[in-house]
Amino acid sequence: MILSDRNSMFSPHLPLGDQQSAPWYGKDIISVKQFTKEDLEYVFEVAHEMRVMVERIGTFDLLKGKILANLFYEPSTRTASSFTAAMERLGGSVIPINEVKYSSVAKGESLPDTVRSLECYSDVIVLRHPEVGASELAAKYASKPIINGGDGVGEHPTQALLDLFTIFEEQEEVNGLTVTMLGDLKNGRTVHSLSRLLSLYEVRLNYVSPDILRMPPEIVGELDEKGIPQREFTSLEEPLPDTDVLYATRVQKERFEDPDEYEKVKGSYIISPQTMRVAKEDMTLMHPLPRVGEISMELDDDPRAAYFRQMEYGMYVRMALLAMVLGKA
Amino acid sequence: MILSDRNSMFSPHLPLGDQQSAPWYGKDIISVKQFTKEDLEYVFEVAHEMRVMVERIGTFDLLKGKILANLFYEPSTRTASSFTAAMERLGGSVIPINEVKYSSVAKGESLPDTVRSLECYSDVIVLRHPEVGASELAAKYASKPIINGGDGVGEHPTQALLDLFTIFEEQEEVNGLTVTMLGDLKNGRTVHSLSRLLSLYEVRLNYVSPDILRMPPEIVGELDEKGIPQREFTSLEEPLPDTDVLYATRVQKERFEDPDEYEKVKGSYIISPQTMRVAKEDMTLMHPLPRVGEISMELDDDPRAAYFRQMEYGMYVRMALLAMVLGKA
Amino acid sequence: MILSDRNSMFSPHLPLGDQQSAPWYGKDIISVKQFTKEDLEYVFEVAHEMRVMVERIGTFDLLKGKILANLFYEPSTRTASSFTAAMERLGGSVIPINEVKYSSVAKGESLPDTVRSLECYSDVIVLRHPEVGASELAAKYASKPIINGGDGVGEHPTQALLDLFTIFEEQEEVNGLTVTMLGDLKNGRTVHSLSRLLSLYEVRLNYVSPDILRMPPEIVGELDEKGIPQREFTSLEEPLPDTDVLYATRVQKERFEDPDEYEKVKGSYIISPQTMRVAKEDMTLMHPLPRVGEISMELDDDPRAAYFRQMEYGMYVRMALLAMVLGKA
Repeated sequence: MILSDRNSMFSPHLPLGDQQSAPWYGKDIISVKQFTKEDLEYVFEVAHEMRVMVERIGTFDLLKGKILANLFYEPSTRTASSFTAAMERLGGSVIPINEVKYSSVAKGESLPDTVRSLECYSDVIVLRHPEVGASELAAKYASKPIINGGDGVGEHPTQALLDLFTIFEEQEEVNGLTVTMLGDLKNGRTVHSLSRLLSLYEVRLNYVSPDILRMPPEIVGELDEKGIPQREFTSLEEPLPDTDVLYATRVQKERFEDPDEYEKVKGSYIISPQTMRVAKEDMTLMHPLPRVGEISMELDDDPRAAYFRQMEYGMYVRMALLAMVLGKA
Repeated sequence: MILSDRNSMFSPHLPLGDQQSAPWYGKDIISVKQFTKEDLEYVFEVAHEMRVMVERIGTFDLLKGKILANLFYEPSTRTASSFTAAMERLGGSVIPINEVKYSSVAKGESLPDTVRSLECYSDVIVLRHPEVGASELAAKYASKPIINGGDGVGEHPTQALLDLFTIFEEQEEVNGLTVTMLGDLKNGRTVHSLSRLLSLYEVRLNYVSPDILRMPPEIVGELDEKGIPQREFTSLEEPLPDTDVLYATRVQKERFEDPDEYEKVKGSYIISPQTMRVAKEDMTLMHPLPRVGEISMELDDDPRAAYFRQMEYGMYVRMALLAMVLGKA
Repeated sequence: MILSDRNSMFSPHLPLGDQQSAPWYGKDIISVKQFTKEDLEYVFEVAHEMRVMVERIGTFDLLKGKILANLFYEPSTRTASSFTAAMERLGGSVIPINEVKYSSVAKGESLPDTVRSLECYSDVIVLRHPEVGASELAAKYASKPIINGGDGVGEHPTQALLDLFTIFEEQEEVNGLTVTMLGDLKNGRTVHSLSRLLSLYEVRLNYVSPDILRMPPEIVGELDEKGIPQREFTSLEEPLPDTDVLYATRVQKERFEDPDEYEKVKGSYIISPQTMRVAKEDMTLMHPLPRVGEISMELDDDPRAAYFRQMEYGMYVRMALLAMVLGKA
């Protein structure tokens, strides 16, 4: 598989000399599997600089004159807005393309043709697509960099990176942390990607879920091999007091065959001020959003509640990636 | 009610010192009720400067590096375009969010969560929403300024301000004017807001409408208490010759139970070159647009026809408000 | 008809003196019929300069501070994106208006009113509309320049110009070329416009189509009168070896009453590497895109395949036109 071969992920956009001097120039961002631990730390270093710059001066002209094509085959307000803001805060411009279903594509145009047309107008393409592998396919044909903005149940690498970056920024050090994941761990793409990224560090992981929504055995097995201590629970009560980072996700009623079963468990996965009384003073509470009741709004002003800051960290990570693949970081 | 308490309208985005030096910095624009007569005159002074600058040089970089999130829960091409143009003419950028119905919000996300997420990416949010009170709710949770772009049958303060600003620019002086409002005065949000704003000045008001579409008694009562002379008519014939400003609105067939009734009255509310023969030479003819036959296209080149200029004045008012809440005016 | 009177196409946006110094300032771009041979060469000269500038520095601030309203009554991702990119590469801004069907227009607003409102906010308007003559109507009422972005089965002048510009850039000289048009020549708006533009030069034209989809006799007659040698074929075999430019279009199944008829002919209109073996080494293969099987993807890396470059040339032509009508070229 292409994803396992690091070199084939990267399109040869530049003569060798230039690539060496700006190692991410022209590369595609398709999967978290591309990133070594050193790569991650480089991304986060650049993202942190972006944060400092935005807090100090708001925007700056690092990517002035560059154009991002935001190609969304399915709507995702949050991801589209975050990339738009990232590009605009760097002085670049955006071509928003949200209606692909109505136009050329509806006439049967293939994804490679759409991408090869759009790259005539733009310097980088963010692709959101409902089908697994769409970004990889696009990257194969495009000569400009492709950034995967989510491809169905496949990958959403910028979400995974922003989750880890949030932990870096909130806790400062990842080694030594106890991270507890809560909710639907079976279907949650975000918790799968995050647990894989965390396995590059010395962490302890707790999984808290209803029995039918447990973390998939292949992920548990993968992390076992890397020597990551993992424990499973059906209630937050036991692991919470030792938790440094609590990553909550949504438990959807539709996942349960028996509605009574859902009614029985749902209360255990709602985080209230009451729940947080036994949590550490300096822990971090995360959620990929949107939430629908999993975390009480009363907690929003709790300094441990990091889920809105998480959105902001996402913008910094996307600024970093855009600058990197355009050869400006 | 919060709206009656001026101070509670304004979110504390800044330490007291800064607020004093730039009095509108960080404030929300939710309702015309926020504005004292002095406030209005300040807005119009800034808006007039914006007009002068645009006419002289087109755009300028007062808000360079600032980002507006244009959050539209229902479509409004005119309002969205006007805010977009206002921000771009000031050198700022826009994140357009038009598809909220398809995305996170469709998944059940609350307005406060959407707003708190978006403010991570942007410096100011314009909110258009079908429900009364949506902007006030958003402002309660947001730490960045919220500008109400219309909330259902509630408020649409920038429309009201642009209507009054049009009168200022076209007539130069509001005191002493006779303003005639025509059409559906019962359901027209614009005429309600405008009559309230006009009551801060020494004006005479005429209301011309079919009997079933008269100005609501609570508004007439409110203005009575302020000593504003008001007269009601069912035909334009009598009040037109003394009118300085004629504000026409649409009379919708659907408002009538008996279609014959509509057919009988509709002709009285269509303004033609014939109608305008008895009007003053220097009067001003306004309409909030879109029109569907209320004003004959033959009048478009009449210098008294101000309804397209009204659109342009709207852009200047929005430029002024954006600059003010971002601390640049 | 207005289109036959060159002067009446151009709105008088400026006093005569200025128009003389910048001859395209304030003009509308409605039809290819506006363009003399000298005009075309001027457009292509400016477009070529745009290409050189983009290749050298990416973007530049020629239209900084100018605002384009991209008014699309029907979706066209490619045309909208191309104009957006053109404006952004010149440092200008764009107001995208894609949802006219939902808003004021849906309430019954006329095209002239919509255009007269939008020009209050913008410096130039690109209009895409499903009805023939829409752009001409808009131009009649607008005081800012209108660029026709396609009006139904009517005109799409920027597409026609980019097709001819592609031939200029790929072949350097148009006189003396043999141009072969392939596919549905009856319904293809692009081939009609291109053949008319080519008739200004000394070219030979070949038409290859199924019998029921032949080039319309009025076009053949028009070119006959200008002395353009034209030949018709039902197969590409004979004309291909002498062809300098092959312009392929789509043959749609729906055009055939008898599906068997379609099955019989469709193979003759698919271009494969096999087909291209007998074509000249330095010929140019064009297609307006989207393609749906007419040209094999195996040909995409053949240096003669110009259809993606065609997209890029389109951006340069649109940059040129925007700069010209805004008085900056």
